[in-house]
Amino acid sequence: MDALLTFEDFTPGRRFEFARRTLNADEIVAFAREFDPQPMHLDEEAGRASILGGLAASGWHTSAVMMRMLYEAYIGRSASEGSPGVDLMEWKRPVLAGDTLGGHCTVLDARASRSRPEIGIVRFRAEVTNQRGEIVAVCEYINMMRLAAKGTDHAHG
Amino acid sequence: MDALLTFEDFTPGRRFEFARRTLNADEIVAFAREFDPQPMHLDEEAGRASILGGLAASGWHTSAVMMRMLYEAYIGRSASEGSPGVDLMEWKRPVLAGDTLGGHCTVLDARASRSRPEIGIVRFRAEVTNQRGEIVAVCEYINMMRLAAKGTDHAHG
Repeated sequence: MDALLTFEDFTPGRRFEFARRTLNADEIVAFAREFDPQPMHLDEEAGRASILGGLAASGWHTSAVMMRMLYEAYIGRSASEGSPGVDLMEWKRPVLAGDTLGGHCTVLDARASRSRPEIGIVRFRAEVTNQRGEIVAVCEYINMMRLAAKGTDHAHG
Repeated sequence: MDALLTFEDFTPGRRFEFARRTLNADEIVAFAREFDPQPMHLDEEAGRASILGGLAASGWHTSAVMMRMLYEAYIGRSASEGSPGVDLMEWKRPVLAGDTLGGHCTVLDARASRSRPEIGIVRFRAEVTNQRGEIVAVCEYINMMRLAAKGTDHAHG
């Protein structure tokens, strides 16, 4: 079994690719009903009449899908200690029903925590793209990561 | 029927209260299974063993619940044209199963759009609180709003 990715693995510039995923109309509507019931997120007609140009995912839905992509790309096999938040979340283009999302995240910088010596603070930039390679969302966020335990072997690639 | 809230209604300092809502374990786990399947969002034991101290909502779940609160507070009865993103999203304290969320949002500033004269740009700060009055999440975001149509009566309070 591969060792968990720890703070030491997140060197500036390291990049993790996202698995591609198509967002269908049912998913868009289900999320919108629960969290963002504006007409353009619920109805194709209303979406076409809006600036978004079609049945479009709530920006927060795109963000949640990005979170799942981050989980699959590295968080699920890392010593993550969660995030205190994001510095930037831009929804740059509509995500329409049937769009296939992908993208990647990159380590911006990494530093030790002053208050918690067993933890490091890693800043990432994530870019979510659609099937035309256009960036639909950008997020810059912090991820707390445990350091490799001292005295143990730290296997990574 | 009340007129839609338009750009002119969003004067700096104006505040909209959120309806209170309790987040239960089933909702937390359902969101996590789909978008953020980290152990502390799926399992009470794992949550208690984590820094979060119990079965805790994904930060993105808290954000999505905040979106619904914003919808109920003003977006659903406004001339909203959506949002290009957020400048800041902080998850300041864990949201645990059974917590009752509330809070409010406040207009920070409002200005005309240079590129689209029928639209104004309103910046808001939203604060989500728990049943102890502690702030669990803060978001500063932009909301595009249509101006009242010229020559029509613009009724607002």
